[in-house]
Amino acid sequence: MVSIEKANREALERIFAAEPVLVDVRPAGEVIEGLDEHVLLHAGPPVSWGQMCGPMRGAVAGVVVLEGWASSLEEADDLAATGNIAFHPNHHFGAVGPMTGITSRSQPVMIVENRKFGNRAFCTLNEGLGKVIRFGGNDKEVLDRLRWIRFTLGPAISDALENCGGIALKGIIARGLSMGDEMHQRNIACSSLILREMAPALVRTSRETECLASILEFIGGNDQFFLNVIMVMGKAVMDPVNSIEGSSIVTAMARNGTEFGIQVSGTGDTWFTSPVEMPDGLYFPGFSEVDANPDMGDSTIVETIGLGGFAMAAAPAVAGFVGAGSSTDALNHTRRMYEITAGKNPEWTLPALDFQGTPTGIDICKVVETGIVPVINTGIAHKEAGIGQVGAGIVRAPMECFTQALEALAAKT
Amino acid sequence: MVSIEKANREALERIFAAEPVLVDVRPAGEVIEGLDEHVLLHAGPPVSWGQMCGPMRGAVAGVVVLEGWASSLEEADDLAATGNIAFHPNHHFGAVGPMTGITSRSQPVMIVENRKFGNRAFCTLNEGLGKVIRFGGNDKEVLDRLRWIRFTLGPAISDALENCGGIALKGIIARGLSMGDEMHQRNIACSSLILREMAPALVRTSRETECLASILEFIGGNDQFFLNVIMVMGKAVMDPVNSIEGSSIVTAMARNGTEFGIQVSGTGDTWFTSPVEMPDGLYFPGFSEVDANPDMGDSTIVETIGLGGFAMAAAPAVAGFVGAGSSTDALNHTRRMYEITAGKNPEWTLPALDFQGTPTGIDICKVVETGIVPVINTGIAHKEAGIGQVGAGIVRAPMECFTQALEALAAKT
Repeated sequence: MVSIEKANREALERIFAAEPVLVDVRPAGEVIEGLDEHVLLHAGPPVSWGQMCGPMRGAVAGVVVLEGWASSLEEADDLAATGNIAFHPNHHFGAVGPMTGITSRSQPVMIVENRKFGNRAFCTLNEGLGKVIRFGGNDKEVLDRLRWIRFTLGPAISDALENCGGIALKGIIARGLSMGDEMHQRNIACSSLILREMAPALVRTSRETECLASILEFIGGNDQFFLNVIMVMGKAVMDPVNSIEGSSIVTAMARNGTEFGIQVSGTGDTWFTSPVEMPDGLYFPGFSEVDANPDMGDSTIVETIGLGGFAMAAAPAVAGFVGAGSSTDALNHTRRMYEITAGKNPEWTLPALDFQGTPTGIDICKVVETGIVPVINTGIAHKEAGIGQVGAGIVRAPMECFTQALEALAAKT
Repeated sequence: MVSIEKANREALERIFAAEPVLVDVRPAGEVIEGLDEHVLLHAGPPVSWGQMCGPMRGAVAGVVVLEGWASSLEEADDLAATGNIAFHPNHHFGAVGPMTGITSRSQPVMIVENRKFGNRAFCTLNEGLGKVIRFGGNDKEVLDRLRWIRFTLGPAISDALENCGGIALKGIIARGLSMGDEMHQRNIACSSLILREMAPALVRTSRETECLASILEFIGGNDQFFLNVIMVMGKAVMDPVNSIEGSSIVTAMARNGTEFGIQVSGTGDTWFTSPVEMPDGLYFPGFSEVDANPDMGDSTIVETIGLGGFAMAAAPAVAGFVGAGSSTDALNHTRRMYEITAGKNPEWTLPALDFQGTPTGIDICKVVETGIVPVINTGIAHKEAGIGQVGAGIVRAPMECFTQALEALAAKT
């Protein structure tokens, strides 16, 4: 037991010592080794084309057309079905992706460098709400937006980041927590704060007026712009926590729409998986739970670092949006997460809980002991390809992943 | 009694029906009739040079030099002392000003139009924190910044507002309340939100890159930028509530550093004044209560419309900043204000109080009956001219103003 405690203390120290800085935006194929032609990365633990859910197949087809590997969605489906696309989890390549999380070589990815440990992580840019590739949208409007992101937005942010020397992220998150963001389903504060930080550098490096104005409008009109930033930051923060002997701290939680998987520090890269659950949430007008796809995405890296559902106390307004009840319920969600975490973040505090630190470092021993599983704030995709987001809700990580992981950790130590 | 109730219902309806839009920025002398050479407007009820506190005299001297009516601060003092400057309250000219609130003809003022009632209100632009004219700062750095605001910032915002057709303010405030702003001592959310709304228009109307970048940096680096916007909005919202026969609703609260004054709808433009109180707050390093000037500024228009101290429940983080206690205390400040107000704002809600509306329309009858006076979040100026802000705190409106006003209202009805 002493050795687990010591290992977990080391894990927490590494989380709190992280110095994540958003440093650049580059085409994924340029910076992610092995992301070649006919290779796609996806959210969650490994999954084959045959097992993939509707929206993930939709996103695959869209991205295959975007990359020019097929000329229609049907042709793209055929290509995937006949084994001509290699699929791998984002997490195996230092990357993360929201919802379907499809990452391909031409898409620009944000790069966060953890300056304390020297590692880097990658994530695509957020496309906005509604019918978007991450929710399985794949029509012309969706692909045209991705092309604009590739040729206009990505290079502009890259130039701006070079101009301003990168953007340190921990302070923005600390402020966001005092501004109603929990950073999974609510990112309006951090999206606004990072825009105001980037805007002068965007001005100094962009030449064409209307193009610059459209970039400021796109970021300024997308309240979830920061979601992908917090995700890539989360990956950069958690990767150095991997493989601490004996540590029972969760280093990744991720869902592929079919399975939920976790990775634990003391068991390295092994995935412990279980069928994924349905979110319990609120639906946009015209949709209901019969339309919903099971839970999906790498965005649970947000909860892995103590935000999202764990920081619900920061965001009473999100409780209503995801159907999690009143402002008191929001506080109680966070209070419960203290029971399954190893510590409190000294820099990220919750004003409504009198500035207690966010509950950080999910300890699989505590999860199994208390029977309390992590609470996750999530978007809900339509179960069919091509439609997009239909709601938002709460989902719980399946206990089975944690019991499996604990058995494996026990067997190792 | 029925007639007071009916009158107060009418007052509330006018407050809630307001449609405030930030429409332009112009030199004050161009849009405020009577703001001529050697005329200065100040915060609070009427006050003569002889009665003025240190920081207000400091601001007067600075602005007299800025206007070119004197070539040194000493000469400016002489000019004021010998009766060569006419002083009037901002409130008498449809204007408001934070702290010393000195408004002069060359300074640019923001114009908010209340499109429901057709009236307009005016307020200077926020200069940032620390040593600034509104806290009595008046050296070269302070005056140079005011010149930059006059020649660069003001015209740029004017052009941007024309380009985007003005900015409707009620929605920004509704969002800000779910983002930790109470809009008196905390405006970081609304400052960020209005910047992201203005930024594309600033880009479309500004020609010079470095000048545009410096404007985005200035606004983006000033977490209190929105304070002056909410103040001018407050004035535009409350002016149509003036002079409703029999109404006991407060239409203005303002302090000149010497006296606290209120105006009440049913008694029109009459001021009911009392010696101003000392704020109870927290001081910046190196300063303490012996340095503090008594309470000052027109910014109490923020509480008059149900924000600031009245909306403390929105801003647990501000409670610490002003020394008002824990997050529970923040909720309790707001709960107490429901006892002295006529209604709840249906559009401005408080997530932490399960989306109850902000307590709106201070009723002098209820104040006198309950013995509860309005709570105000305020900045604290150094009592000597030329130094600036030394802290922030809470202050209570003096009961005497309300008893006087109630007697006068009773005598009229």
